[in-house]
Amino acid sequence: MTEAVSRPTLEAVAARAGVSRATVSRVVNGGDGVREPLAERVRRAVEELGYVPNQAARSLVTRRHDAVAVVIAEPESRVFADPFFALQLRGISKELTAHDNQLVLLLTEGRADHARVARYLAGGHVDGALVFSLHLDDPLPGLIRDAGVPTVFGGRPDWGDDPGAAVCGRAGEGPGHGVVYVDCDNRGGAHTAVRHLVGLGRRRVAHITGALDQTSAVDRLDGYRDVMADVWGEDDPRLVVESDFTPAGGERAMRELLGCCPDVDAVFAANDLTALGALRVLRESGRRVPEDVAVVGFDDMVPVAEQTDPPLTTVRQDIEEMGRLMARLLLRGLSDGRDRERTAADAPGGGVILPTTLIRRASA
Amino acid sequence: MTEAVSRPTLEAVAARAGVSRATVSRVVNGGDGVREPLAERVRRAVEELGYVPNQAARSLVTRRHDAVAVVIAEPESRVFADPFFALQLRGISKELTAHDNQLVLLLTEGRADHARVARYLAGGHVDGALVFSLHLDDPLPGLIRDAGVPTVFGGRPDWGDDPGAAVCGRAGEGPGHGVVYVDCDNRGGAHTAVRHLVGLGRRRVAHITGALDQTSAVDRLDGYRDVMADVWGEDDPRLVVESDFTPAGGERAMRELLGCCPDVDAVFAANDLTALGALRVLRESGRRVPEDVAVVGFDDMVPVAEQTDPPLTTVRQDIEEMGRLMARLLLRGLSDGRDRERTAADAPGGGVILPTTLIRRASA
Repeated sequence: MTEAVSRPTLEAVAARAGVSRATVSRVVNGGDGVREPLAERVRRAVEELGYVPNQAARSLVTRRHDAVAVVIAEPESRVFADPFFALQLRGISKELTAHDNQLVLLLTEGRADHARVARYLAGGHVDGALVFSLHLDDPLPGLIRDAGVPTVFGGRPDWGDDPGAAVCGRAGEGPGHGVVYVDCDNRGGAHTAVRHLVGLGRRRVAHITGALDQTSAVDRLDGYRDVMADVWGEDDPRLVVESDFTPAGGERAMRELLGCCPDVDAVFAANDLTALGALRVLRESGRRVPEDVAVVGFDDMVPVAEQTDPPLTTVRQDIEEMGRLMARLLLRGLSDGRDRERTAADAPGGGVILPTTLIRRASA
Repeated sequence: MTEAVSRPTLEAVAARAGVSRATVSRVVNGGDGVREPLAERVRRAVEELGYVPNQAARSLVTRRHDAVAVVIAEPESRVFADPFFALQLRGISKELTAHDNQLVLLLTEGRADHARVARYLAGGHVDGALVFSLHLDDPLPGLIRDAGVPTVFGGRPDWGDDPGAAVCGRAGEGPGHGVVYVDCDNRGGAHTAVRHLVGLGRRRVAHITGALDQTSAVDRLDGYRDVMADVWGEDDPRLVVESDFTPAGGERAMRELLGCCPDVDAVFAANDLTALGALRVLRESGRRVPEDVAVVGFDDMVPVAEQTDPPLTTVRQDIEEMGRLMARLLLRGLSDGRDRERTAADAPGGGVILPTTLIRRASA
């Protein structure tokens, strides 16, 4: 155990100066309201004892830590297995570092730990929070709201647009009130992907969904259905297989698709990792990509999308930029609110939607 | 920006009860020394205002956050690219969660941010820290020591065993005094690896080192030299190529080796990622593994080691267990020290060294 030689405390300074702890705290934090002879006595005691102000004490006064929490609503093992989070964290880290703010990543083993995360957030250790990968029915957004920490969400939370599915609410205000989030144009991106497949002359276009307790997956499915309805008036429900954004999930879904719809000639996968799994199964089953089955992903997660066999045509979203923008919006909100009392009523709220683009490679 | 309706403050409670902030704080934290009528007044004010104690305030008294920081002395991009850290974090996360402690991962863009990390640690936001991937000349260990946070290091820090290379010191006590660390038997593991290659009849056994500003790399190199000296009395310095624990570094080093020592018939790579790079270059240059060149790695980082071509023979260290043990030692130290004043003199210090084992696969 590394331990400093025990450091002089605020109490010790107060005792030496013969003043209250509150007075020491006020002086140490450059505060007003302390008469000069008293302040001088405190400063002398600080110097004599070599007192270094504890930031917990200082932050009681300044309420500023120059630290921002990042909460990913997934188990730690998932956070490190999915490069999506690494990319988003990269953008966040760059932006926070540029403003000399400490990135505080709060990891969990799962949803059971979310109450503890909320306690830490409520504990006054950070100035704000960036929260992503929210799932329906997760109490986290509500807990964070109750913690009273300024927050920017990554991905559209599930309240606001659909009041019936509100995750958290409070009497007298809508659940999504004052919520700021950053997302990409999931529905528009899905339109682009499916229109591209239709434009290639494909007639049996399937969709392997993401985890449907996340708005990104729901929006991409809606985008797929929009185009299918537009082109054929209706869609074959067997062509939609539910999955979970993982390679293993993509494999399972592709097997199911080949079983129920052997005439499938195109797949829009909800993300690149899902497409990776689908490509594996297509290869194993002897289907040529794109000749027999064209495949489009979503994310353009480099290097994954470049290194699939064949390289993946996909809908690009700028994941790193999303992270950077989340951090920027939070820091701006914090500095806007610095000199006034902030309340929910002040928060502008709303979403920032980033555009997507189709990146053509060999798979479609 | 999500904002709670502004919450009642400690100050508001103090004003309503007509007492000082310190008194409110003492009552809220179940503290003694407050007369009952006063305490009752405070409790009533707390109830009337719906005051939720701020943990920053509470922790000034209890000095306990149930949170542990993890600091990896590498840029954020490296942390997410090297599965070693993910494995170590997995062990740490499981252990901390089992004790309802929050894992607070402090990420940086590089060494320039280490002072900020130390400030955060000194700020009273965590009860202790787990620190790993230390490099020589990094001011971090000294800064952390000055922050006065109980710390367990992953990997032997560079002070203690070698006073000349002390990273941080303090008048009146040795630099490594009271330092607790967890490491694997790097030197012994290297012995096993090199003896295995010699036992296979290899005569030109090369070593691609890790980053030599880390003790793990130095210890593995020493282990290699021990065996070479033991077997041949001296070693050919051209057979040792310095590298950096990455696949790209392994590739560069292997090319250099093939250039200067085309008769090389075995390689002990400082870790599995380095071996991965070396295997790639050997394959490109038409050398068969293990027939022409036998290769042994270090770590047994699954799935990396299993999925190389051919599968990698390697020295296994239990990375996840190292993380778990670091967390366990820290939590134990914290609870031992809970009820008494801790000073540097109390800290037992010392290292816990975990054994290694050779895992034989196809590459050697």
